[in-house]
Amino acid sequence: MSARKAAVLVAGSWGTALASVLADNEFDVNIWTRNAAQADEINRDRRNLKYTDDAELSPRIAATVSMEEALRGAEAVLFVAPSAVMREVARQAAPYLSPESVVIHATKGFEPETMKRMSVVLAEELTGVDPASVVVLSGPSHAEEVIRRCPTTVVVAAGELTAAERAQDVLINSYFRVYTNPDAIGVEVGGALKNIIALGAGLSDGLGFGDNAKAALLTRGLAEIARLGVTMGGHALTFAGLSGVGDLVVTCTSRHSRNWRAGYMLGQGKPLDDVLRTMGMVVEGVKTTKAAHALARQYEVSMPITDQLYEVLFAGKEPQVAVGHLMGRVRTHEIEEIAGASGVKWTF
Amino acid sequence: MSARKAAVLVAGSWGTALASVLADNEFDVNIWTRNAAQADEINRDRRNLKYTDDAELSPRIAATVSMEEALRGAEAVLFVAPSAVMREVARQAAPYLSPESVVIHATKGFEPETMKRMSVVLAEELTGVDPASVVVLSGPSHAEEVIRRCPTTVVVAAGELTAAERAQDVLINSYFRVYTNPDAIGVEVGGALKNIIALGAGLSDGLGFGDNAKAALLTRGLAEIARLGVTMGGHALTFAGLSGVGDLVVTCTSRHSRNWRAGYMLGQGKPLDDVLRTMGMVVEGVKTTKAAHALARQYEVSMPITDQLYEVLFAGKEPQVAVGHLMGRVRTHEIEEIAGASGVKWTF
Repeated sequence: MSARKAAVLVAGSWGTALASVLADNEFDVNIWTRNAAQADEINRDRRNLKYTDDAELSPRIAATVSMEEALRGAEAVLFVAPSAVMREVARQAAPYLSPESVVIHATKGFEPETMKRMSVVLAEELTGVDPASVVVLSGPSHAEEVIRRCPTTVVVAAGELTAAERAQDVLINSYFRVYTNPDAIGVEVGGALKNIIALGAGLSDGLGFGDNAKAALLTRGLAEIARLGVTMGGHALTFAGLSGVGDLVVTCTSRHSRNWRAGYMLGQGKPLDDVLRTMGMVVEGVKTTKAAHALARQYEVSMPITDQLYEVLFAGKEPQVAVGHLMGRVRTHEIEEIAGASGVKWTF
Repeated sequence: MSARKAAVLVAGSWGTALASVLADNEFDVNIWTRNAAQADEINRDRRNLKYTDDAELSPRIAATVSMEEALRGAEAVLFVAPSAVMREVARQAAPYLSPESVVIHATKGFEPETMKRMSVVLAEELTGVDPASVVVLSGPSHAEEVIRRCPTTVVVAAGELTAAERAQDVLINSYFRVYTNPDAIGVEVGGALKNIIALGAGLSDGLGFGDNAKAALLTRGLAEIARLGVTMGGHALTFAGLSGVGDLVVTCTSRHSRNWRAGYMLGQGKPLDDVLRTMGMVVEGVKTTKAAHALARQYEVSMPITDQLYEVLFAGKEPQVAVGHLMGRVRTHEIEEIAGASGVKWTF
């Protein structure tokens, strides 16, 4: 009897970590990458040095530059490409994707320019795939810890619950706890937007503000994320769960986080171009800030933290002026409409 | 024209930090303490070494062992005693309290044995004071940062909004942002219970679990706090605000936190008695765990994190067994009743 098969596109930190989870679950995993040297490194050295340091990869993981080979017989296909290239990767995958495969994505961001959610991009490119069956994977999960098998909890969400349950079945194990959630939009929006708040938290830390200020930023950031998410069709409770507050906390308070680190360097006075060059990897929060700034206007939602970060990143505003502006905003009541609130409202 | 006057009871870290805020707001502040040597140190050296390290205190701050002197002419009286002695301090203050004073408390915990909220204890002892006029001060605010004038945001809550507004007026300044909230119960319960989750977060860190696990613990902890808080009469939204998620984050992720530190030492295998002796200061979370464990039974609310911590603290359970139990709980859906949820429910 041959092993179950899965495919992961592409071979970044998070993709490689998820491939390791699948390998631990006794899947034969193909990682697709455009980069032949990287594929060789994975197949020959069992390492993906640039993305997962010296972690030794399972012999069940094989890398390939052939999309056809990657997808052959795959019961589950995990799209983990950066948001800017997701459409292109999906386009290349489309001809080889079996209608039997469960489609999962674990990318936190919107498509630049169109500001579309990743599941929408996938559904547009993968002809024959029902949008409600595209599964979103999110939650507080640093790749560095998952690859070391540290206990981790994530959420899989899809409009079609059976699709989420298939993803859960494929991914769950003793250290990787997977919960289902029917609110794909809320999970997706929360995952994308928390990177903005992580940038802001890094900025605050880089400027030398303290933990009290960062906690305030995080609290208001969560409110701002939920406000946009609910307006876009998400459920408010999702933002209080693993893919909301959970992911926000881990991204804003851990030194593992790229977005936090980018914000920290900006706070210390480095120009954006230098920061992005130093990082070497994609900083999703930078592009997400641009998308969210546009979405806030489109949906007419107030997003003061996003607006300030947008001005720091793209309009040359001094970071200390931006953070000072956020701390000093004139407000008196924490929950302005609490007395009249019916049901779930985020008004502060 | 003489300066406005305020009183702070007693001279711990948080009380001293709040006295400094009041002094910056040009109040003459009397700090009451039972300890004559400590009063001398404050008056002579302008230091409160045990509680606020080498921070230099304002000349506007004076310490006294006389309750009558402390309260004379005080426009605002801040009760910041440990929860176990709050009733005794209130009893001593009662005869000297002017009916004109605004009564504020900033203590996070329940009265041991009775499990009463601090505002209830105060209202019982301060005859003539309307319970709805007792103001609760809470939020993400490490004393160490407030005394160094780091930007900080807090909430003042009271059933009677004018009382909260008086507290806001007395305390607000450029680095200490004070918001009002009508939900005194929610603010009080959130502030008390977050210390339990901080103990749990420290335990998880002490055992060597990672940031992913801690974020999961924090997310579920918030849900558990909100569940009890709402059942006790608080508003669910309060738990998403500064005194809920904000305070939880700062307490669980900052090395300043006593509760986190106590949990960390427990996680490293130190017995509880040794930990409490090493700390030298009150660890509110230990007593709060006992109270919350009883409240969960009284209100019939499920609080799995509290229950596990209770067993570690008071029934000799091994910390790794307890945290392992929390990580491995059998659950599949993140939000079990989301489909049928009307209004605000915390069902996960």
